[in-house]
Amino acid sequence: MKKFINKVDDILTESLSGFALAHNDLVSLHLDPNFLTRKQLAQNKVAIISGGGSGHEPLHAGYIGYGMLDAACPGHVFSSPTPDQMLAAAEAVHTNKGILFIVKNYAGDVMNFEMAGEMLAVGHATVLTSDDCAVINSTYTTGRRGVAGTVIVEKCVGSLAETGASLQACKALGDKVNSRTASIGVALTSCTVPAAGRPTFDIGDNELEMGVGIHGEPGRRREAMREADAIVKDMIDAILADFTSRNLGPTKNSEVLLLVNGLGATPLMELYLIYNTAAKLLVDAGLNVTRSLVGNYTTAIDMAGASITACLLDDEIKQHWDSPVHTPALRWGC
Amino acid sequence: MKKFINKVDDILTESLSGFALAHNDLVSLHLDPNFLTRKQLAQNKVAIISGGGSGHEPLHAGYIGYGMLDAACPGHVFSSPTPDQMLAAAEAVHTNKGILFIVKNYAGDVMNFEMAGEMLAVGHATVLTSDDCAVINSTYTTGRRGVAGTVIVEKCVGSLAETGASLQACKALGDKVNSRTASIGVALTSCTVPAAGRPTFDIGDNELEMGVGIHGEPGRRREAMREADAIVKDMIDAILADFTSRNLGPTKNSEVLLLVNGLGATPLMELYLIYNTAAKLLVDAGLNVTRSLVGNYTTAIDMAGASITACLLDDEIKQHWDSPVHTPALRWGC
Repeated sequence: MKKFINKVDDILTESLSGFALAHNDLVSLHLDPNFLTRKQLAQNKVAIISGGGSGHEPLHAGYIGYGMLDAACPGHVFSSPTPDQMLAAAEAVHTNKGILFIVKNYAGDVMNFEMAGEMLAVGHATVLTSDDCAVINSTYTTGRRGVAGTVIVEKCVGSLAETGASLQACKALGDKVNSRTASIGVALTSCTVPAAGRPTFDIGDNELEMGVGIHGEPGRRREAMREADAIVKDMIDAILADFTSRNLGPTKNSEVLLLVNGLGATPLMELYLIYNTAAKLLVDAGLNVTRSLVGNYTTAIDMAGASITACLLDDEIKQHWDSPVHTPALRWGC
Repeated sequence: MKKFINKVDDILTESLSGFALAHNDLVSLHLDPNFLTRKQLAQNKVAIISGGGSGHEPLHAGYIGYGMLDAACPGHVFSSPTPDQMLAAAEAVHTNKGILFIVKNYAGDVMNFEMAGEMLAVGHATVLTSDDCAVINSTYTTGRRGVAGTVIVEKCVGSLAETGASLQACKALGDKVNSRTASIGVALTSCTVPAAGRPTFDIGDNELEMGVGIHGEPGRRREAMREADAIVKDMIDAILADFTSRNLGPTKNSEVLLLVNGLGATPLMELYLIYNTAAKLLVDAGLNVTRSLVGNYTTAIDMAGASITACLLDDEIKQHWDSPVHTPALRWGC
């Protein structure tokens, strides 16, 4: 394992400290328990809090700021944050409108956010993201996993919260975006968890893992490596089949947000090549790709791989996707 | 070699097509010869054109847009673009105020941009970037290499050009930014050029290449892998020594822009850890880090590695760094 680290135990603190230093106009870091908030705390809105294991950067701390999260709770690498982190974050950012947790569907995250919720004195709700259509149930999950689609949920819910919308309305929008979003990932290499010091799984020079999870969890199957177009076609087919199985249509000319997400070690050149094929396949299927995002938005440490996410848009989702956002990792309109 | 590609010969066209599709609100792609321009061509300003071999994405096409480039000419992977590309780009975007080429100092790029300049009917000038303080002369370079500091040059010159400034003023600012910028890179792995199909160089599990170039060119020396703090200290020492050798001071409280740039396969978590150490070392040296950028901005395909760039700010550079920019890869203030 070669990584830019000092002591394995210090990675998280040192990385978070660098993040907070680099973005000290936008975020504040609190240690023991670890959480990050906006530098300028928002008033009179639902507080949007997310969190999860580290190693998926910029998720979640990179999405703290106007139009998105109020706070994020980073666990250790690939480990759930603990309830004391969520309670401290909630205490720091809640106003008078309640707290919405956005939680990726992993057993540890779900349990710990639930425990925090039970201890909270203020009103709260939870949006559980489960956009990964690769597998039902997985190493750390009962049901579908939450992956890169979480970024779209956080963006839209964060936008709605800025308008002063109620906790119920924010939860409803989050649930709706999640219900209209499907993702699938593919790995060419494993990731390496620093504390483990070696790749999470072995994979041959001529293999790929179709449907891989963002912690290196097994996907649908080990397959032969092949041309990008063939890989992407299988991924888009899986997403379209998922939409169909959920009775989401999609109907002709349905508008779609297409997110091609790098898992950590895949060059932009390849992500754009994937985007090119994915967009054409969606158009061939009668859809209208009107929003895009390409880059490293939900990673698996240093995995070479990518995921494709499609979100079926409606006017409300478009409005909240397009609205101004000012965070370390997503910024437009301000 | 495992990459998301189809035929090696088609990588560039397919990736550029995906890039243009994903950012069709901002850029237009022209093929044969290959160049990209802003979707909405600017009027009555110096046209800022850059280009170079592909494989460094988002450099340069990712910096096309308001406040930065008017056009970019992508060569094949790690190969210089040709004069016909630059001439076609110039023809497409020039107005009445002349053309400024921003060229990284590599022999092929310099020669081809010079040839294009000789054939141009309109007034032009060139800013040659040479921020890499690792080595004097290198595989493809006489003199210092142009690396990630080029992004700062493009941002500042692009900003000044939007004000209607003259060609001479734009060139002067570009030269000044370059003269106040120093970078150094380090590789933990090689990159793999798709057409070659195997890593450009061999490197052991306990080695790093200090001072590596963005094409995998040799750096200062092969060194033993060690803790991040020790690696970063050597890099910051090299940058400070370079400033001193160029009589740039820096004086106490000099303001600095600190760019920690990933070379393609290094996770954000590690880049922020590097930033944390680098910022502290600069502060220890009496400097004041007031601007930051952390992420993949000038890459070497899929190299695991990072570079550190410091730019000594003055009021003019700060003004043009902070000004609004709207490109696929850098966006703020609009």
